[in-house]
Amino acid sequence: MKVGVLSGGGDAPGINAVIRAVVRKGIRNYGYQMIGIKDGWRGLLKGAFMPLTLETISGLLPRGGSILGTSRTNPFKREGGPQQVLDNAKENGIDAVVVIGGDDTLGVAAKMGELGLPCVGVPKTIDNDLGFTDYTFGFNTAVHIACEAIDRLHTTAEAHHRVIILEVMGRYTGWIALEAGIAGGADVILIPEEPFDVEEVCQNIKQRLERGKAFSLVVVAEGAKPEGAKSIVYGTGSDEFGNPRLGGVGYYLGREIEKYIDIETRVVVLGHLQRGGSPTAFDRVLATRYGVAAIDLVHVGRFGQMVALHGNKIVFVPLKDVAGKRKKVDLELYEISKIFSG
Amino acid sequence: MKVGVLSGGGDAPGINAVIRAVVRKGIRNYGYQMIGIKDGWRGLLKGAFMPLTLETISGLLPRGGSILGTSRTNPFKREGGPQQVLDNAKENGIDAVVVIGGDDTLGVAAKMGELGLPCVGVPKTIDNDLGFTDYTFGFNTAVHIACEAIDRLHTTAEAHHRVIILEVMGRYTGWIALEAGIAGGADVILIPEEPFDVEEVCQNIKQRLERGKAFSLVVVAEGAKPEGAKSIVYGTGSDEFGNPRLGGVGYYLGREIEKYIDIETRVVVLGHLQRGGSPTAFDRVLATRYGVAAIDLVHVGRFGQMVALHGNKIVFVPLKDVAGKRKKVDLELYEISKIFSG
Amino acid sequence: MKVGVLSGGGDAPGINAVIRAVVRKGIRNYGYQMIGIKDGWRGLLKGAFMPLTLETISGLLPRGGSILGTSRTNPFKREGGPQQVLDNAKENGIDAVVVIGGDDTLGVAAKMGELGLPCVGVPKTIDNDLGFTDYTFGFNTAVHIACEAIDRLHTTAEAHHRVIILEVMGRYTGWIALEAGIAGGADVILIPEEPFDVEEVCQNIKQRLERGKAFSLVVVAEGAKPEGAKSIVYGTGSDEFGNPRLGGVGYYLGREIEKYIDIETRVVVLGHLQRGGSPTAFDRVLATRYGVAAIDLVHVGRFGQMVALHGNKIVFVPLKDVAGKRKKVDLELYEISKIFSG
Amino acid sequence: MKVGVLSGGGDAPGINAVIRAVVRKGIRNYGYQMIGIKDGWRGLLKGAFMPLTLETISGLLPRGGSILGTSRTNPFKREGGPQQVLDNAKENGIDAVVVIGGDDTLGVAAKMGELGLPCVGVPKTIDNDLGFTDYTFGFNTAVHIACEAIDRLHTTAEAHHRVIILEVMGRYTGWIALEAGIAGGADVILIPEEPFDVEEVCQNIKQRLERGKAFSLVVVAEGAKPEGAKSIVYGTGSDEFGNPRLGGVGYYLGREIEKYIDIETRVVVLGHLQRGGSPTAFDRVLATRYGVAAIDLVHVGRFGQMVALHGNKIVFVPLKDVAGKRKKVDLELYEISKIFSG
Repeated sequence: MKVGVLSGGGDAPGINAVIRAVVRKGIRNYGYQMIGIKDGWRGLLKGAFMPLTLETISGLLPRGGSILGTSRTNPFKREGGPQQVLDNAKENGIDAVVVIGGDDTLGVAAKMGELGLPCVGVPKTIDNDLGFTDYTFGFNTAVHIACEAIDRLHTTAEAHHRVIILEVMGRYTGWIALEAGIAGGADVILIPEEPFDVEEVCQNIKQRLERGKAFSLVVVAEGAKPEGAKSIVYGTGSDEFGNPRLGGVGYYLGREIEKYIDIETRVVVLGHLQRGGSPTAFDRVLATRYGVAAIDLVHVGRFGQMVALHGNKIVFVPLKDVAGKRKKVDLELYEISKIFSG
Repeated sequence: MKVGVLSGGGDAPGINAVIRAVVRKGIRNYGYQMIGIKDGWRGLLKGAFMPLTLETISGLLPRGGSILGTSRTNPFKREGGPQQVLDNAKENGIDAVVVIGGDDTLGVAAKMGELGLPCVGVPKTIDNDLGFTDYTFGFNTAVHIACEAIDRLHTTAEAHHRVIILEVMGRYTGWIALEAGIAGGADVILIPEEPFDVEEVCQNIKQRLERGKAFSLVVVAEGAKPEGAKSIVYGTGSDEFGNPRLGGVGYYLGREIEKYIDIETRVVVLGHLQRGGSPTAFDRVLATRYGVAAIDLVHVGRFGQMVALHGNKIVFVPLKDVAGKRKKVDLELYEISKIFSG
Repeated sequence: MKVGVLSGGGDAPGINAVIRAVVRKGIRNYGYQMIGIKDGWRGLLKGAFMPLTLETISGLLPRGGSILGTSRTNPFKREGGPQQVLDNAKENGIDAVVVIGGDDTLGVAAKMGELGLPCVGVPKTIDNDLGFTDYTFGFNTAVHIACEAIDRLHTTAEAHHRVIILEVMGRYTGWIALEAGIAGGADVILIPEEPFDVEEVCQNIKQRLERGKAFSLVVVAEGAKPEGAKSIVYGTGSDEFGNPRLGGVGYYLGREIEKYIDIETRVVVLGHLQRGGSPTAFDRVLATRYGVAAIDLVHVGRFGQMVALHGNKIVFVPLKDVAGKRKKVDLELYEISKIFSG
Repeated sequence: MKVGVLSGGGDAPGINAVIRAVVRKGIRNYGYQMIGIKDGWRGLLKGAFMPLTLETISGLLPRGGSILGTSRTNPFKREGGPQQVLDNAKENGIDAVVVIGGDDTLGVAAKMGELGLPCVGVPKTIDNDLGFTDYTFGFNTAVHIACEAIDRLHTTAEAHHRVIILEVMGRYTGWIALEAGIAGGADVILIPEEPFDVEEVCQNIKQRLERGKAFSLVVVAEGAKPEGAKSIVYGTGSDEFGNPRLGGVGYYLGREIEKYIDIETRVVVLGHLQRGGSPTAFDRVLATRYGVAAIDLVHVGRFGQMVALHGNKIVFVPLKDVAGKRKKVDLELYEISKIFSG
């Protein structure tokens, strides 16, 4: 039996830990031949592979990134793509594929499975917004880094009597902003799930000033929007605030606050700092459990499933149920954030 | 309404985060007067208090330790202790107490509740062995630190072709050893729940040598015992291995390995390094949620309960059910550790 | 004797460590009364003070920021400012001032000294570009943080086959970029001291691609400029690249590289993350030595001096010599960075 | 030209960074063939080598340990050892050797040089006690880790009203204890250079108790001795305090303090945690500079020299002058530590 492994979408701390677990148990316990597929689905489109042996995975557990590389290539967006994937898999004798990815990558896995390529999914996104699982790996590390950033910014905000705004990732959901914001003691937390009222944010900061707190820390998810805003275009031309693509909601907010209140405001965009580097212990354990469960699924021939975490237990959910269903933030957590606000 | 807060037992990262949440919501949302009880139950025995205001809790979230101090004092082990506690509470107008602690401290809370002191419990132990909750706060930080330690020791073990043994906390259960061991890629993990066979451990290391891995990393919980061992006396005279109290199972193991195999062995006892310092983001969020839920319980008058985490949700369990029931390690996790062993 | 302490300019990790050392030795060894001056020179302009006792400095050593607050207020830019400073000092019985700051703040100290306010200076800037001292405190921490950032970005750059550009602080000199770039193994390092040729940078990245290195990491100081560029306006309207103030040289470079080479490029601006938080051990020791030496200078009445580090030794240099003389990067270091480039 | 590289003695963070610099500049700038000698001088005794190419050193900069392995083997302590080393070097066409090591390893290099093996030395010891250089690489990382440990222990000591003793490395000199102790704000620092008086230590802690500081933190170098003690035997049988080898001066001190004062005392031995893992930015830069300078020395044919740091500059000192001359701690630093003591 020959099993392929691929990682697609944005990188997340823990991909290598999944690969290590899949390969280790695949080779040692099941005697499989393991093969790495380069750069996500692109590798199966183009026939780009690398060997995965016990040697390859030595020392891999703590390393960030993905030794397989990753991409956002979607074979269904290319003429004849799916057939090419099937052909390449067949030609290379690949009997099954462990697919590590988020919404898009796993959606492809679901559809390729229907076309005859046996797939098993492992949920990966630092945003934690994938449905049917309590946690995706990578999220805990992202929150950890964002929380450290808030700790650092706190001392500067306080020393300079400033508002500091930290913009974190989260286009559609505010998981990182919410958990890091609570962990770091942010004074205002803004998430995509709840459009914000700029005036209310400023009011909040003003009240702190009146209570003698001469600084404030705001954490905002990149996808958070002011009430009434129709849409924010990311990554191209300019957004609806008149910012060029560099300036997202964080910079918008900074300018608005300086209009309302006589206080210096600074903006920090955490960006790629929150997705790289060595995974936390939590993510290493989760990624390892996912990897082990995924190769176990291959072994028992249960394809078309994604491994998931429910409470403390690893469970399985159909891949086709997962795609396109974002998991919004826990409202209990959001309510908690308000207790510490202002 | 006047609400007391105390922390008992060993310190754990996150106690201050609980105190902050309890005080913040108590004062801001419920208008309570909050009072700190010093050094666990000892403070109620001796009448030692400190004020807890919004000022006191400023900047408290990321700080390790406990601003209230802590102790292992048990009023039920003192002549007239429980009555003294009741008297001191009454004299100082304390209507309810939020008790942050592990098995012992919460056991006292259950009994004091029956005697008429309204208590609410918050589960704290870095060992994670408290029943009825998926996680206690402090555990994630301990695992994080132990995992960092393993990362560091790995490079030394490899450069020197040595066996390095890391002894971590866990007298009765192996949670820290197991999670940190999996996260750090330990080659052997030994826990109290499963007596170990020294020869098998050595066999494991030998096999690695034969496969060209000239080093090994062993993680052992302080309470792990060799098969057939009757008891290990901690903290006094000498243990059954002939070690003085300084030398626990880690040192025993080191000597045994050097007897069986021609390989240098070093022992590191992580000790108090795994319980101090700033809590991880995970523990800060958990501690904050616990604190909020605890003061909410006080507000609705549901005493005799402990806040707990089930999956992603905060729930409540009767304090009297908690005491004396250790939560052993998850067997699925233990099986996973064996996949990566040897 | 009553001694004031103030911190001016941008905050830097270690200010609190200096304050602690000055206050501790001032009170314990010399029996001085110590007084905190709030927000740099503004505190002496406005008469804003706070007490500095042994209590105040307890636990201060590891904390980032400045408990005194800081500002860039320059009394010489205000009508009657210097006289107000003298008057406020006199009224409050301040006999001498320990001034913690960079070029501007220390320049004011030099001039106020000539007007009759006895001052002693402590060199502080994360940029390390102050003359007459080998190191300013805060620099080591900034390099440490920037180096951690590069480590994180490396794994993402490699997994995605991207160019990642990290823009770090350094308007006039490239100390942080150079040391963090060497420490992090950057492929290209750009500093203000050496105008860069965009084509050469791209050539460098291309050569890496041809050698099979599908990613590159560029570290650029905010003040680095392309050859022939006349000036870059910071912090207002737009820069000469057509960026609004948000987009500095990092974004400019990102766009240029994507024009020349078919490779995805991402930009991260480290910003305020590199100046906050707990100082490294190195900066704590240096800050402590500076603080001790500064109060010693006060004790012997040698005013108008700045403490400085030459090799391993603390020495003293006249404040009036320091102002306006930037220390450019060490050329030996710059040559070393080229060895590892491309 | 074929150049060998070896690392001997205890491992230290930064060895791999030296190797990377030596190999990179050796191959890229000078066109040398580079060869790795395994496990220090043992590799030249036994003829154990590994290739060192640009591939080998990819990703090496941040990694702890030594990819070459290390040992304390001294060819001069083996019958015919030196001749074997010469023969093996000749047989394998090795024209010169870059020797990374401490006192012992460099001492061998000095003598082998006289016997005809051209050597260049790079100073490595976490203890920083090598003469003729301001800093050895590895020391900054060790101090950083020890300082983090003190930060963690502080919170526990404070919460439990305890004395906590941290024993750090330093058999003959107290560099780590002194710098980490100052950086961490230790209340007592004990070093080998100054025999301590137990009663005075206890007096110090008592005075803190009387001033309301209910906890104390003691940092002690493993080689510190009480006044009048003749010798401490390490690593075998038992020491002069009656401890088995596990119990060094830290445990001795703990017991003595508990005899004198009614206060709980805990001991943590940092051990191998302070020598492994990724080097700090400071050590990476220093190691890189040393590596570059070492291969430059080979290139100009200046053998029998060690690279060293004087102030900010890399200089060269004769290898034969270095051996056996320990650099004691800076007395200015030691005086500073006393200011913050008690």
